[in-house]
Amino acid sequence: MNTSSDIRSDVRTSDPTGLHRVLDDRAVLPQAAQRLDTRAELWPDEVRIRVERLNLDAASFRQLERKHTKYGERHPDAVRAEVLDIVATRGKMQNPETGSGGMLVGTVEEVGPESPLGLTVGDRVATLVSLTLTPLVIEDGLARWDGDSEQVPCDGYAVLFGRSIAAVIPDDLDPALSLSVMDVCGAPALTARVVEEYVARGHAPTVAVIGGAGKSGSLSLAAARQAGAARTIGIVPRQDEHDLLDDAGLADAVAIADARDPIALRDAVTTAGGPADVTVVCVDVPGCEGGAILATAEGGTVIFFSMATSFSAAALGAEGLAADVRMLVGNGYVPGHAAYAMELLRGDAGVRALFERRH
Amino acid sequence: MNTSSDIRSDVRTSDPTGLHRVLDDRAVLPQAAQRLDTRAELWPDEVRIRVERLNLDAASFRQLERKHTKYGERHPDAVRAEVLDIVATRGKMQNPETGSGGMLVGTVEEVGPESPLGLTVGDRVATLVSLTLTPLVIEDGLARWDGDSEQVPCDGYAVLFGRSIAAVIPDDLDPALSLSVMDVCGAPALTARVVEEYVARGHAPTVAVIGGAGKSGSLSLAAARQAGAARTIGIVPRQDEHDLLDDAGLADAVAIADARDPIALRDAVTTAGGPADVTVVCVDVPGCEGGAILATAEGGTVIFFSMATSFSAAALGAEGLAADVRMLVGNGYVPGHAAYAMELLRGDAGVRALFERRH
Repeated sequence: MNTSSDIRSDVRTSDPTGLHRVLDDRAVLPQAAQRLDTRAELWPDEVRIRVERLNLDAASFRQLERKHTKYGERHPDAVRAEVLDIVATRGKMQNPETGSGGMLVGTVEEVGPESPLGLTVGDRVATLVSLTLTPLVIEDGLARWDGDSEQVPCDGYAVLFGRSIAAVIPDDLDPALSLSVMDVCGAPALTARVVEEYVARGHAPTVAVIGGAGKSGSLSLAAARQAGAARTIGIVPRQDEHDLLDDAGLADAVAIADARDPIALRDAVTTAGGPADVTVVCVDVPGCEGGAILATAEGGTVIFFSMATSFSAAALGAEGLAADVRMLVGNGYVPGHAAYAMELLRGDAGVRALFERRH
Repeated sequence: MNTSSDIRSDVRTSDPTGLHRVLDDRAVLPQAAQRLDTRAELWPDEVRIRVERLNLDAASFRQLERKHTKYGERHPDAVRAEVLDIVATRGKMQNPETGSGGMLVGTVEEVGPESPLGLTVGDRVATLVSLTLTPLVIEDGLARWDGDSEQVPCDGYAVLFGRSIAAVIPDDLDPALSLSVMDVCGAPALTARVVEEYVARGHAPTVAVIGGAGKSGSLSLAAARQAGAARTIGIVPRQDEHDLLDDAGLADAVAIADARDPIALRDAVTTAGGPADVTVVCVDVPGCEGGAILATAEGGTVIFFSMATSFSAAALGAEGLAADVRMLVGNGYVPGHAAYAMELLRGDAGVRALFERRH
């Protein structure tokens, strides 16, 4: 059996998981590592990307924004300084508070001779693995970023491993739009899979999406309907989002509720035609576990996509409510997820309208 | 729709979830609350328990033990002081670091006229909902606890809500043994359910249990075999646990690996007959997500029972490895879970031997 020292002693050999770039004393995967090796020279199965733009995870950006708001005043310079500090210290962008990162877009700069990713120098790509495990060097001090949006213009480089995933950005769409869709493409793919399982068992489910007007939320609503949901319910926090989602026609019912208020959330879903057989949590704020569980029918499924989800709050919340619900950790990877999300964007005018409105 | 103020204004009416005992400004469920109302007078659907013993969650106790070990020396008095402080401040036992609590055993002291739990004054019970949502008052300063074990002798009282769960302790078993089994009874019940789903689809799965010699681990191994697993693999950290589990005969193969070392864990499971179709994580240490994912076959299932699990590490870990695995949050509640666990204990000499060895 391998031990830590066996692995680290053979540092010349690359591992498809990126283990050879981990600088920690213990053998951990790049995502769990404190610090990554960011050397520009590639191992044979790696790819180097010239970075154009980082897309910070929404929960991470909100946490940084909250942290650097003092007496009601935002300090975007401090947000920028902290991002630079994290990347310089850890060799990757991983918010120590939320544990999350984001993704990036860039152009392929060099491809190692043994890379299995099928990329060519000059390809414009989005990385579909998290920034939390991607070696990253920022070379422009983020001079073009004002620190007040999760979209970060950036010059620098990043490294992909043998087992990474990157998608070539389609020529026919605004790259910012593609990036925005790819960023959340795990959510619609997993939602569709779960709905299809219900349909295959002869039970077209009622699906509630908490945060239905957002990026992952609107795609999940479209996916649920396409996969055969009997009824789709979108829950949003405010009237403006209600009207937007209603106009987009993505949900059979749209209702307003604060997802952190468990009773309000349960009542909103129930009134809109629930309880839900499948509840999809797509909001970026902490504290939505209890309401999502209460809004779900006995024997139903909750899919947590928000990086603000607390494992113990979900596990103990369901136990404490004696709620027999299946709870899934929203895995950001499902085979074919990027292509499926692009297909939803192209085929659904409502999704496209919501996404284009953001740009 | 209800708003926070609507709910809190009618504080005289009890809610089966225990909402009426929440003292926070926002309407949150008891599990998410900062502070609970511990008044001894009952609402009509409540039950009051005279507490004999607290059983702290293992991840929580280890964290407290680590925190109060200075220069290699343990300070159990400081552990006791912190538990007393948490309970006095919050009105419940919830470790602020791990978010977890534990359970308790005691005797029914008073039953509200509208309680649906079916309990009678004098019943000796274990609560199967977490201490993180149970109003608790400690009245003896934990004078009989030396602070060096998760088993805490305690005099005081606790309150159960309409939707709580408590199991009467069987007369024919050592109460400490019953409590020990009930504490982890969600794990074998959910493991059995998942294995049965595979079997129903015509595919008897290979099941790996990480932490197979522990309480939830050994019960999960027994449950997997009884539910029809094709092969069971127990992973343990040390030779002594290897020998114990091997003697108990609960697993087809037993192997040693550090679950925090992802490559070592993957290799150990593979060598023992993996990859696993179903991987059950029952160890109380942080950092096991990556290895559990790597040890699982494509399309397989990981069930996380450890309260030390990080949601973001699981979600981003799978994405970062491009691993198409289904990940379940181990819900501590499955209907009939306590009876099922007691049945495993009574029917499986290996399980019984492992549990009796602890007492």
